[in-house]
Amino acid sequence: MSAIDRPLLAITMGDPAGVGPEVVISALASRRARAACRALVIGDSRILTRAAGFVGRLFRPRIVSSAEEAARLRAPVCLLDLRNADPEHVPIGRVSADAGRAAAQYIEKAVELALAGQIAGIVTAPINKEALRKAGIPHPGHTEMLAALCGVRRVAMMLVHNEMRVSHVTTHVSLREACEVITQERVFTVIGLTDEALRRMGIAAPRIAVAGLNPHAGEGGLFGDEEILEIAPAIETASAQGINAIGPLPPDSVFARHRAGEFDAVVAMVHDHGHIAVKTVGFTVGRPSAGAQRRRSAAMRTAGVNVTLGLPIIRTSVDHGTAFDIAGAGTADPTSMIEAIALAGEMARAR
Amino acid sequence: MSAIDRPLLAITMGDPAGVGPEVVISALASRRARAACRALVIGDSRILTRAAGFVGRLFRPRIVSSAEEAARLRAPVCLLDLRNADPEHVPIGRVSADAGRAAAQYIEKAVELALAGQIAGIVTAPINKEALRKAGIPHPGHTEMLAALCGVRRVAMMLVHNEMRVSHVTTHVSLREACEVITQERVFTVIGLTDEALRRMGIAAPRIAVAGLNPHAGEGGLFGDEEILEIAPAIETASAQGINAIGPLPPDSVFARHRAGEFDAVVAMVHDHGHIAVKTVGFTVGRPSAGAQRRRSAAMRTAGVNVTLGLPIIRTSVDHGTAFDIAGAGTADPTSMIEAIALAGEMARAR
Repeated sequence: MSAIDRPLLAITMGDPAGVGPEVVISALASRRARAACRALVIGDSRILTRAAGFVGRLFRPRIVSSAEEAARLRAPVCLLDLRNADPEHVPIGRVSADAGRAAAQYIEKAVELALAGQIAGIVTAPINKEALRKAGIPHPGHTEMLAALCGVRRVAMMLVHNEMRVSHVTTHVSLREACEVITQERVFTVIGLTDEALRRMGIAAPRIAVAGLNPHAGEGGLFGDEEILEIAPAIETASAQGINAIGPLPPDSVFARHRAGEFDAVVAMVHDHGHIAVKTVGFTVGRPSAGAQRRRSAAMRTAGVNVTLGLPIIRTSVDHGTAFDIAGAGTADPTSMIEAIALAGEMARAR
Repeated sequence: MSAIDRPLLAITMGDPAGVGPEVVISALASRRARAACRALVIGDSRILTRAAGFVGRLFRPRIVSSAEEAARLRAPVCLLDLRNADPEHVPIGRVSADAGRAAAQYIEKAVELALAGQIAGIVTAPINKEALRKAGIPHPGHTEMLAALCGVRRVAMMLVHNEMRVSHVTTHVSLREACEVITQERVFTVIGLTDEALRRMGIAAPRIAVAGLNPHAGEGGLFGDEEILEIAPAIETASAQGINAIGPLPPDSVFARHRAGEFDAVVAMVHDHGHIAVKTVGFTVGRPSAGAQRRRSAAMRTAGVNVTLGLPIIRTSVDHGTAFDIAGAGTADPTSMIEAIALAGEMARAR
C-alpha cells in the first residue's frame, strides 16, 4: 500500500507527564504502526523532544498547521503542535492541572478533526483521571469525554487482544452498582454496538456470545436472577432483530470457547469478567525477558487495545494508564500503542 | 519410587451416569497418575466395566473388601465395589435418584477411610447437583457434603492449574449475595487457609496476593468500599499474624502478575474472577486437535484441579461436571482427573 492510501489517524499524546509521549514515539518507530497509517500526532513538540531523549530515539515529524496539510503531505508522521505543555511546568511522573488541561485539548482537537472528516480515526495515549479533575475537566475519563464531544449517550468499551474481543455492559462502577444497572435495555444496546463494531472490523456475519453475570450464569435462578430477568430477554430482542447472539453462558467458560474460535466476540456484564480474561491471557503473548519484565510497571503488562463503541468516529486506545512510576525511564512498552494504531488503521480501511 | 512408597488415594467414581467412570479409567491408564499414587477406586464394578467399554480400554483392578487390604497389596489399582449402581437402572447421561444416592455413598465411604487414616487422600469424580437433590441428599455439592462429614465449617475452594493457584472467598452464590458475605472474617479465614494449603504443597514461605472485589480494587473508594471496609483490614490481620499477604490488588492485573511468578497464590473474592483467570488460560495448555476439540463438551475444556481447603483430610477434584451430553461417548478428556490425582499425591507426600 502506498503512503497516500494509508488512512490518516490522529494520535493524541496523552498526559505530558506520563508514558504517553514515550509510547507514541516508540510505536511510530515500528514497522507495524507505520504500515497501518499515516500519523498526525497531536501534542507538544517540546514534550515529545524530551520523551525522544528518554527512549533514545530520533523523533522528527513534519510540523503541520492543520490536518488538511497533513493529508496533502506524504510524510508518514506529522505533528500538530498545540504548544500547550511546557516541560518546565510539567515535571515527569507528577499529577498536575497543567498536564490534565493539555491532555484534554489534544482530545478535543482530535474529535473536532474526526467529526469534520479530516482524519480517519483517533488513537489515544493515556490520560490521568486525577490530573483531569485538577484541571476542572468535567469528565472522569476518555470515554465520557468522547461521548460528550460527539453528542452521543450510548457507548460501550470493547477490549481487543489478538483473537479476543470483549465488550462490556458496565465498566467503572462498583459490583453492587453494576448489578443495578444491568438492564434489558443496556444489555441489548451493547449487543447491538458489538455487532456493529464487528462488522466494521470486517466480519460479515458476527457470532456473539453473551456471558452471564452470576456463577454458572445463575444456574437456572439458583445463584441470581439477572440472567432470567434482564440478560436472556435482551438476547431474544437482539435475535429477533437478526443479530446472531447466544447466551447467557457461564462466565467462566465462555472466554475459553471464544479463544477456541466459537464466537467472534463476548459481551461481558462487568469490567473484570472481560478484563481478567483478556489481560490474564494477554500476558503470555510476546512475553519479554525476565529483566525487561521486572523493569516494567504492573499496569503495562498486556498488549490489549480498547475500542470505544457507539461513537460516530473510530477511536482506539491503549489499555494501560499513565504509569507515572516508570514515566521518564524510557522503558514503557509500546506494544499496546502499536496494536491500537494497527486496529484503528484496519477499521478505517474496512469502512 | 517403589509402589509401596506411593500414597494410597481413594478415587470416587462420581455419578454413575456421567463421565466420572470414564475419566477415572482413562486417568488410571496414564503414567502420570500411576506414578503419583496407588489408587483405591470406590465405585461399582458393573458401571466401571460399562465405562471401560465406552473408552475402549481394559480395566482390571484388584477387588478388595477394605482399604487395609488395598494398603497391604502392591497392586497399583484396587477397587472397593459398593455394588450400589445397577447399569440397568442408571441409564447413561440421565439425572436419577439412584445415581445421586450411589455417588453420595462413594464420598461417605472415602471420607470415613480418610478420617480413619486408612487412605492418604481423596480424589473425586463429578457428581450431579440435581441427582443429589432427587436422592434426598441434603447438600448441594461436594464441598458442603465433605465439610459436614468432616465436621468443619470453614472451608474454601482453591482452583489449581499449572503455575496458577486461586482460592475463593465466595463461590456458588449470586454476585449480589457475594457482596454481602465478603466480610473481614471470611476474607481472613480464606487467606489463612490459603497460606496453610501452600505450605502443604511444599512452599516454605508462601506469597499471597489478595484481589479486590470491584474494578481497579475500588479505586480508593470511588467504585465500591468493600476493599476499604472488609478486605484491607483482613489483610492487615493476616500480616500481623506473619502471613505474607498483599492487596487488595486490581482483579484484572493480579492474575497476570501471579502467572509471572510474583505470588504463589491469589485469593479471589468471587467465583468467576478466579475461574475466568484459570479456565481462560488453562485452555491453551495441551490444546487438542480441532477434531478432538469439537467432540468435547464445553464443560470439559480445561485441566484445572479443585482443592478443598479447611478439611482435616486431603481432597482434590476435577474442575468439570458430569457432562451428561458426552457421557457414554468415550471422548471425555481425563486431563483434569490425571492432574487431580497428581496433586493429591504430591500433597500426601509433602505431609
